[in-house]
Amino acid sequence: MKSVNTSPISGMQELLPASQATFNQLKDEIARAYHAHGFQNIETPTIDRTEILLAKAGGDTEKQIYKVIKTEETADDADQALRFDHTVPLARYVVEHESDLAFPFKVSQIGKNFRGERAQKGRFREFYQCDVDIIGRGELAVAYDTEVIATLYDALKAFSLPKYVFRISNRKILSGLLADLNLQGVAEQIFSIIDHAEKVPKEKTLQNLQGLKLTDNNTEKIVNFMETRGPRAEVIPKLEQLSENELFQQGVAELNTVLELLENSVPKDNFVADMLIVRGLDYYTGTVFECFLDDYKQIGSICSGGRYENLTKYYSEHPFPGVGGSVGLTRLFYVLNEHDLLKSQVKKPVDILVIPLSEKEYPAALNLAQTLRAQMFSADVVFTGKKIGDQLKYAGKIGRFAVIIGEEEAKSGEYQIKNLETREQIPLSAIIETS
Amino acid sequence: MKSVNTSPISGMQELLPASQATFNQLKDEIARAYHAHGFQNIETPTIDRTEILLAKAGGDTEKQIYKVIKTEETADDADQALRFDHTVPLARYVVEHESDLAFPFKVSQIGKNFRGERAQKGRFREFYQCDVDIIGRGELAVAYDTEVIATLYDALKAFSLPKYVFRISNRKILSGLLADLNLQGVAEQIFSIIDHAEKVPKEKTLQNLQGLKLTDNNTEKIVNFMETRGPRAEVIPKLEQLSENELFQQGVAELNTVLELLENSVPKDNFVADMLIVRGLDYYTGTVFECFLDDYKQIGSICSGGRYENLTKYYSEHPFPGVGGSVGLTRLFYVLNEHDLLKSQVKKPVDILVIPLSEKEYPAALNLAQTLRAQMFSADVVFTGKKIGDQLKYAGKIGRFAVIIGEEEAKSGEYQIKNLETREQIPLSAIIETS
Repeated sequence: MKSVNTSPISGMQELLPASQATFNQLKDEIARAYHAHGFQNIETPTIDRTEILLAKAGGDTEKQIYKVIKTEETADDADQALRFDHTVPLARYVVEHESDLAFPFKVSQIGKNFRGERAQKGRFREFYQCDVDIIGRGELAVAYDTEVIATLYDALKAFSLPKYVFRISNRKILSGLLADLNLQGVAEQIFSIIDHAEKVPKEKTLQNLQGLKLTDNNTEKIVNFMETRGPRAEVIPKLEQLSENELFQQGVAELNTVLELLENSVPKDNFVADMLIVRGLDYYTGTVFECFLDDYKQIGSICSGGRYENLTKYYSEHPFPGVGGSVGLTRLFYVLNEHDLLKSQVKKPVDILVIPLSEKEYPAALNLAQTLRAQMFSADVVFTGKKIGDQLKYAGKIGRFAVIIGEEEAKSGEYQIKNLETREQIPLSAIIETS
Repeated sequence: MKSVNTSPISGMQELLPASQATFNQLKDEIARAYHAHGFQNIETPTIDRTEILLAKAGGDTEKQIYKVIKTEETADDADQALRFDHTVPLARYVVEHESDLAFPFKVSQIGKNFRGERAQKGRFREFYQCDVDIIGRGELAVAYDTEVIATLYDALKAFSLPKYVFRISNRKILSGLLADLNLQGVAEQIFSIIDHAEKVPKEKTLQNLQGLKLTDNNTEKIVNFMETRGPRAEVIPKLEQLSENELFQQGVAELNTVLELLENSVPKDNFVADMLIVRGLDYYTGTVFECFLDDYKQIGSICSGGRYENLTKYYSEHPFPGVGGSVGLTRLFYVLNEHDLLKSQVKKPVDILVIPLSEKEYPAALNLAQTLRAQMFSADVVFTGKKIGDQLKYAGKIGRFAVIIGEEEAKSGEYQIKNLETREQIPLSAIIETS
């Protein structure tokens, strides 16, 4: 026996109960923050039509998607696959249920997505993403961009992380600048050079720009742009002088609005304008942001998002502009643990173990457990009949406190509660109402 | 456009936000009850090795399992499929992590499982199951059977259902009786006749028994057994007289223990001994139970479970006896809605909509929203710039209350809160601390 391999498939997260409790706590706190900000939670099916999921995709997505083999009984259905993100099923959902939704539709999705990536450390094939999106019908005020960032800021509070900072830009600024400088022909390359600028030495970035054969003046302007980072009062006036292009100025005005409104919701130290943020995807069209831990830049961005022109362009004629952001919880949980940044969160899964010394005390133990549960404690009765030493060892593994019930305690109803770590013992009635 | 079919695949649940909120609330309350009873939550991957998932299966399971097509990058991996229940992955988990777990291992699993069943009303191919299991290493006291039922009783409280009753039996009783009567040869048929007895007229059940060519005496004993239902004080003495077979008597003693202990955790009206409960699966070996709504028997069982001899027999030499139970949440949510039994739960997703009349009031609105969130309200700021009538219409669709902020309110900080249903308006400061 045990010839069967019982390890989970590589690339899958499988946690022991204590870690799972921490993970769940973070997920619940994120859900709580999303709800507090008025986002409505939805859940789309894990399995969807391949035609829907791949309407826009290509490249890696198409290679990594998990298709599902139909069963005998579902053989007539369309080709099916597992969703690889929340955005595509959301687009389908919005078109399908448009008449039942109120717009702007503030929507949250917390669930598992699937990508058959090559197995490597810290990459997961099945992973939780926690998304918020605000979808307008026809139009959507730029003030909503602020709301997504403020919501994610509140959601991350649950992690008790060291200082984290949202770095914010607007894609219209760089697009407008490149139009102004007549550099649309190399726009893609320049976006990519800026996107990678932090990962290479400064000389390399200059070399990369020179490789595009720009004039010195243009190179200077782009470098000047790239180095623009700071609070609103500094950044906006500096940017305003850089170009008179209309798209550029619109981007700066939007950035100004987002930063100004954000001052009402997020502490000033926790966000900054930063022109190095462009986001790889050509999906975003306005505001873009990424959030980093100030002292752990090597971890990479811990959440990100931005504004897009039309969520549903593959399924509907009407434009649904939106803004959204996402916490990649499975990956984030992994890297935070790698850097020992979640230790303070770990706690024992059960609050109080109730240990009856013999079967005669089972009723008293069961009654006490119900009383404790009514007071919002997690309580467990141990029925093993093992020696008290073994029982306490068991209790210490999964619980924080123990109440031992012998004949006398069962009769009097007077219990002692034992701290399983310090071994200290005090009357239960001193801290909890027991009758 | 919209040539693409945007409906979800048939057999999938996809809810509008208000229903989703009710569904999530029930799921959270179940999780809370499981936690209160000291169950440790775990989550196994949705995708697992086909070899693991089908180690024991056969018949329908094998036909309905969703296999997953590997991607280019996972081509070397073993054959994979989506899990169809929580029990099989749990068995793998227990064997894989045995040395890190404390036994008895009280474990909960709340997540989606997948079966490619033929599409029909009320059947789902992707569905939530909420399981609790208690796994012993080598042995497990029968008192733990009680704990599973008590936990499920508490979990169902969240549904505010009409009266529900756990009907409890023990498979050893019938097995022992059949051994005593020398009827092991037709045991499978008799289990099946009893399992179906409630769905057919009594004459049909008698006919079915006669079809087995039993002696009159044996038929009478089995009918007598089948009709045994009631509280412990009645049922146990009646059963004890029926047979002296050892297995039979052991089953009766176990049933007695379970019922007696249950009196400490569940009101007497909510459980009953009932020999009609046998559970179809040959998986169960001791205690078996099903829970029904007293006045809605047509709904069928709303949760069920039982005791099994060895969770891990396909993967390990050591026996891990267990007892477990499950709420099939997706199906239950569907049938309860069909019978209008969840209406009282529906509420608007957002507590308070904050509506600034112009951009000048955005900062005041954002500040107020943060204050409300700190007091655990779900609050949302509406930035649409539409006419106030349209804004209130929007607010009424998603929220319960609105606070409108004009120039004067922003200056004074004195706000009115409007009930969006009754249109009543009172000062916000009368109910909420606003500064």
